[in-house]
Amino acid sequence: MPPQRATLLQVAQRAGVSRSTASFVLTGRHKDMRISEDARQRVLRAAQELDYRPNLMARSLRTKVTKTVAMISDTIATDQYAGRMIHGSLTAAVASGYLLFIAETDGDPVVEEKLIADFVDRQVDAFLYASMFTRQVRLPKALRDRNVVLLNCLTRAAQPAHHTIIPDELGAGLAAARTLLDAGHRRGIYLVGHVREQVFAGRERLAGINEELGEAGAQLAGTIPCDWWPDSAYDAVRRALADGLAPKALICLNDRVALGAYQALRDTGRTIPEDVSVLSFDDSDLAAWLRPQLTSIALPHYQLGWQAIDTLLAPPSPAKVRRLPMPVRLRASVAAPPGD
Amino acid sequence: MPPQRATLLQVAQRAGVSRSTASFVLTGRHKDMRISEDARQRVLRAAQELDYRPNLMARSLRTKVTKTVAMISDTIATDQYAGRMIHGSLTAAVASGYLLFIAETDGDPVVEEKLIADFVDRQVDAFLYASMFTRQVRLPKALRDRNVVLLNCLTRAAQPAHHTIIPDELGAGLAAARTLLDAGHRRGIYLVGHVREQVFAGRERLAGINEELGEAGAQLAGTIPCDWWPDSAYDAVRRALADGLAPKALICLNDRVALGAYQALRDTGRTIPEDVSVLSFDDSDLAAWLRPQLTSIALPHYQLGWQAIDTLLAPPSPAKVRRLPMPVRLRASVAAPPGD
Repeated sequence: MPPQRATLLQVAQRAGVSRSTASFVLTGRHKDMRISEDARQRVLRAAQELDYRPNLMARSLRTKVTKTVAMISDTIATDQYAGRMIHGSLTAAVASGYLLFIAETDGDPVVEEKLIADFVDRQVDAFLYASMFTRQVRLPKALRDRNVVLLNCLTRAAQPAHHTIIPDELGAGLAAARTLLDAGHRRGIYLVGHVREQVFAGRERLAGINEELGEAGAQLAGTIPCDWWPDSAYDAVRRALADGLAPKALICLNDRVALGAYQALRDTGRTIPEDVSVLSFDDSDLAAWLRPQLTSIALPHYQLGWQAIDTLLAPPSPAKVRRLPMPVRLRASVAAPPGD
Repeated sequence: MPPQRATLLQVAQRAGVSRSTASFVLTGRHKDMRISEDARQRVLRAAQELDYRPNLMARSLRTKVTKTVAMISDTIATDQYAGRMIHGSLTAAVASGYLLFIAETDGDPVVEEKLIADFVDRQVDAFLYASMFTRQVRLPKALRDRNVVLLNCLTRAAQPAHHTIIPDELGAGLAAARTLLDAGHRRGIYLVGHVREQVFAGRERLAGINEELGEAGAQLAGTIPCDWWPDSAYDAVRRALADGLAPKALICLNDRVALGAYQALRDTGRTIPEDVSVLSFDDSDLAAWLRPQLTSIALPHYQLGWQAIDTLLAPPSPAKVRRLPMPVRLRASVAAPPGD
């Protein structure tokens, strides 16, 4: 039982003009159609008095613009953290008068195809194709000829077919190493977490770390492999310490790994940062909640979402990959190495 | 440059029938209109060959159903945790063939009004009015006569005007107290966190705790007031312990408070659960990441989102407030009190 919307006819009748005159005025065509200023004023007043709002869906059938964007993601809305990407996209979309559909595919291509068809049926103007973790994807066929921006994912193509917004993970690796070097670290620096070829963030972060350490004549002392979760990191670091490892600094591949490392260091009587410095990536809420607070390289989720919408709604331009900077959040978990 | 959609006219031409015949067939009105079975088959074949999809927006102008739902929330998408509410809503909506718009108001009534008008312009069928934290709200005027379900919030009205889905926070309080009583606790039970009249969760949880303890002839030994964040909880618990407080059990008003309490207990040499049992609410990811793992009463965010959509799309029924159970996730942070 929604309140009845005032029709164009009602506006016209109240203004004492024909339906087409009212329409010309309300679509800004009064000059072309030589509508008198007096009639125009009466129509505008009537529209205001009746709280007339043009039927956007009827109009969109003529103009083919519905001012809606669909964000299609794997599991972005579920994630504890990538929600900020939605927030950035939402804010940018609303600022431009667009509304945002969201949909999750859980990575299922059949669901994905169905959802894309549903959005096309609703004449969505443009698409964000998004991923929770930065990764390489194949853009679904149904999206290839449409207005699409890739958000936090990229295709393998050397020359991108669509604009692509990702975090600068390589720069983050450089910054991580630079932070430790600046604190005086040169030796006993270990990486905590698996680095697998298919995980973009890990691969790029490691490349950045190696590059920056290498330029300073230093190198990683080794890697403590584990999944990117607290439990796995705890077990791996405990085992490594039990085996006699004596790290001066740990670079953890995300904040959850750092939480596990904190627990393992604490349970073996080591103090952060006096005995061991710890540094991490992501800058999730967790980083500021740990004791001591964790220095972490931030994933700019909000900016990623905002930039993606901004790019999507901008005039067409040659497609390129844009890497957003990942700022270092300096806190209390990095200090000079203990005297040798 | 989206691929051109096959038109109804093209289907009709390929099938060798009139446009209206094709339309009658494709909208299931062939019987009423006495279309021959042969013509019907030709139309269906042509539609399939041309990959014809009806223009849902054009159809919606006739049927007034766009099969879209808008979720309007304060800051739900931003929250680290309530994202599961979106996930539940999304899944339930897609399962019913609906798509979901989301929008955030940041609690600003002007933004809210504008967004609602935008959705109405797009002829959204139904609305979820959602809150990140369970709280009392005033439903915006523009939504009062529409198809709305309140998700994780409720109005002050004794008789609700709309279906309302909230977590059973009173039941959660009862369960928290019951968990401690079952472990043998009777004395030295403290609540950690402010309980303010306007915070629904805190008020209801406390009422449940008091009721259940009271029935067992026990009562809270006191409250350690603090904000519902790790830092504040850490400071408050440290101060209380320094002042000589000797708790046997802490009921923390959320997992972040429990994190702060863990840190304070650890830093003062107390072991969980041997010296002090700790129990909490929310069951966020954090609960399973802490050492020892934290027993927590779960907020059923996914179920809240799912139920809200289910209720919204169900046939109309008298409005009521539905409270979803909050299950206890038993982990390792509660044990029998140390011998007196």
